[in-house]
Amino acid sequence: MTTPIGPRRRRTQKSSSNLKITILCGIVTILVLRGTIGVNRLPDPNDHRQQELLKEANRIVAEIRSGADLDDEPSRISNTTYSLGPKISNWDKDREIWLNQNPNFPNYVNGKPRILLVTGSQPSPCKNPIGDHYLLKSIKNKIDYCRIHGMEIVYNLAHLDTELSGYWAKLPLLRSLLLAHPEVEWLWWMDSDALFTDMIFEIPVSKYENHNLVIHGYPNLLFNEKSWVALNTGSFLMRNCQWSLDLLDAWAPMGPKGKIREEAGKILTENLKGRPLFEADDQSALIYLLIKEKEDKWIMKKVFIENSYYLHGYWEGIVDRYEEMIEKNRAGFGDERWPFVTHFVGCKPCGSYGDYSVERCLKGMERAFNFADNQVLNLYGYGHRGLLSSKIKRIRNDTSSN
Amino acid sequence: MTTPIGPRRRRTQKSSSNLKITILCGIVTILVLRGTIGVNRLPDPNDHRQQELLKEANRIVAEIRSGADLDDEPSRISNTTYSLGPKISNWDKDREIWLNQNPNFPNYVNGKPRILLVTGSQPSPCKNPIGDHYLLKSIKNKIDYCRIHGMEIVYNLAHLDTELSGYWAKLPLLRSLLLAHPEVEWLWWMDSDALFTDMIFEIPVSKYENHNLVIHGYPNLLFNEKSWVALNTGSFLMRNCQWSLDLLDAWAPMGPKGKIREEAGKILTENLKGRPLFEADDQSALIYLLIKEKEDKWIMKKVFIENSYYLHGYWEGIVDRYEEMIEKNRAGFGDERWPFVTHFVGCKPCGSYGDYSVERCLKGMERAFNFADNQVLNLYGYGHRGLLSSKIKRIRNDTSSN
Repeated sequence: MTTPIGPRRRRTQKSSSNLKITILCGIVTILVLRGTIGVNRLPDPNDHRQQELLKEANRIVAEIRSGADLDDEPSRISNTTYSLGPKISNWDKDREIWLNQNPNFPNYVNGKPRILLVTGSQPSPCKNPIGDHYLLKSIKNKIDYCRIHGMEIVYNLAHLDTELSGYWAKLPLLRSLLLAHPEVEWLWWMDSDALFTDMIFEIPVSKYENHNLVIHGYPNLLFNEKSWVALNTGSFLMRNCQWSLDLLDAWAPMGPKGKIREEAGKILTENLKGRPLFEADDQSALIYLLIKEKEDKWIMKKVFIENSYYLHGYWEGIVDRYEEMIEKNRAGFGDERWPFVTHFVGCKPCGSYGDYSVERCLKGMERAFNFADNQVLNLYGYGHRGLLSSKIKRIRNDTSSN
Repeated sequence: MTTPIGPRRRRTQKSSSNLKITILCGIVTILVLRGTIGVNRLPDPNDHRQQELLKEANRIVAEIRSGADLDDEPSRISNTTYSLGPKISNWDKDREIWLNQNPNFPNYVNGKPRILLVTGSQPSPCKNPIGDHYLLKSIKNKIDYCRIHGMEIVYNLAHLDTELSGYWAKLPLLRSLLLAHPEVEWLWWMDSDALFTDMIFEIPVSKYENHNLVIHGYPNLLFNEKSWVALNTGSFLMRNCQWSLDLLDAWAPMGPKGKIREEAGKILTENLKGRPLFEADDQSALIYLLIKEKEDKWIMKKVFIENSYYLHGYWEGIVDRYEEMIEKNRAGFGDERWPFVTHFVGCKPCGSYGDYSVERCLKGMERAFNFADNQVLNLYGYGHRGLLSSKIKRIRNDTSSN
């Protein structure tokens, strides 16, 4: 039984309870505030500074982007037919005249046709920061191959036509380059997620004397299965001629973004085996174009579907085999023994989502890059310590007679 | 005056107080937990996925890096003298023999000396993600200039010598390239934070017939003031000859990281005006080397200190004037009227800390890039909508006669 408590003591006890509750409420308030403003720990000054710098950089980039957006005007009234540009019909003749008038810019040098490698990526920083690092490594890889083989490069960071954005951006780019570079015999489009992995192999251009488009793929997948992966537009050659301008004109109509591209996507999914439903992409559109060509076949007779070497090499079956290749083979084959190109289809390191695990993709790309880089460094007497290592070691003794 | 309270009511009141305190404590506990585990709001699924991908990417990159670190062996016993490689004394003769034996690889093409542009950056992703994006834009800028002017590029992502890391990495790289490319007459080192901003200007190589090193700077700053910014090693030409190998050998000793570099830094700060105290950098070391040269002057007589055009153009005085230049001048001057190179000294977009505001640097780089890019896009009939805009507009009507 409790001892009766006098009034003063009850007041003291009550005040004490109130005080406890007040203190607790104060703590609760502070904690709610902490939780809301995200202050979870004592700040590390360096970390804080780094975060601040990062935020500021992002703010400025967003400002740069938004200033750009404000300037955007619609480029075409939507019910007019899309066109890459005014119709050009006489390019073969015009080009021939230009070449004759400019003997210092021949389309063949030392018996080899002049090839211009064309690649590129989005104008803005990658959503996933690691993406820009791999874009950088990818262009370094291409610079190395092209230096060794006497090819020039165009790296595009511009959307020349706002309607043909994303993967379609290559079409207006290719058209512009064909017309601006009559001295170039072949344009070679290569995706930014495709790496050279055979630094010695050269495209056997003499095979293609009678063709204007060289693309990796499988005829049975194209004509029998009508598969949406029958060809790969991640790496292909396009001859500088009227036919190519006509092809681009025939190819472009599914590209304009918005309703046209969405509706075209549905047609492609209905007609191509295995294609998921999404907006029209340039690869599916080209496949569809080749399939539905009628007897005329003006397109197909000039297309060479190449699979005797890895003009495009699907990465998944390649990246685990590099050590085996080093042990058993040598550079120069360009095929499954030593793939010419390793193409990281579906990895999308620049974007938010890929179709494969981040780990598999990044490690695969690192290995492919180093596998290729070794073939260049070896020329200078160096090599990577391992296919996942950026560290370098000497592989050949430096001598005073070098 | 309070009414006396009976025992049962007191127990009830006390239980009620205890309950309130218990509930409050429970809330406090939950809030503390929330604060500690950083759960501040209802998660947005996309945001969460993006964060997950980012974390995973960072984890894999860290794993790739750590696997590399484990392989690292010390490359030199610290009390032996550092050397770039075995002493080479006959390079002029050896190179001449090689050139005679390889007439298909002349060092002069169409009357112009063969120049190899050399640049590079760190092997690992930038600490500041925006850094990789600007490295990418920087190399695209260099690709454009070199394609227009028939120059080849080496983009280095390797530390060929772990002791000469950071800004010193260019020394072993230059030595390797001189020896591996006898067909190259000049190596042109250019920093990754330097952009071409005059796409027409060409280096007046005939000025340098009697010189082996061409570097931007000011003789009075060098010999009178002994200023640590008298020269700039962010953009310089080095002839392929014995003298250059000797220069590299004389230059390298302050470079080995650790105690040597730190002590050398102190010497440089004591001797060069305005130099803050930090480890030895290649630029200060070269300045010091030129200053302390005795009567022999084997080095200085072959060095051309150039300031008649912006072989290096300090960005701060340039980036706000592009619109004025466009209005009053034209490409081709290469000097203050239309700077050949705009060099973002001190911005360090790849690192954590720069000497300038992030805003000023990023906007400056964006403007410089677009100012240069316009000179290339204009050739194709396009241009940026503004110097801060990545958006493109047609500046010339496309016609069917193009």
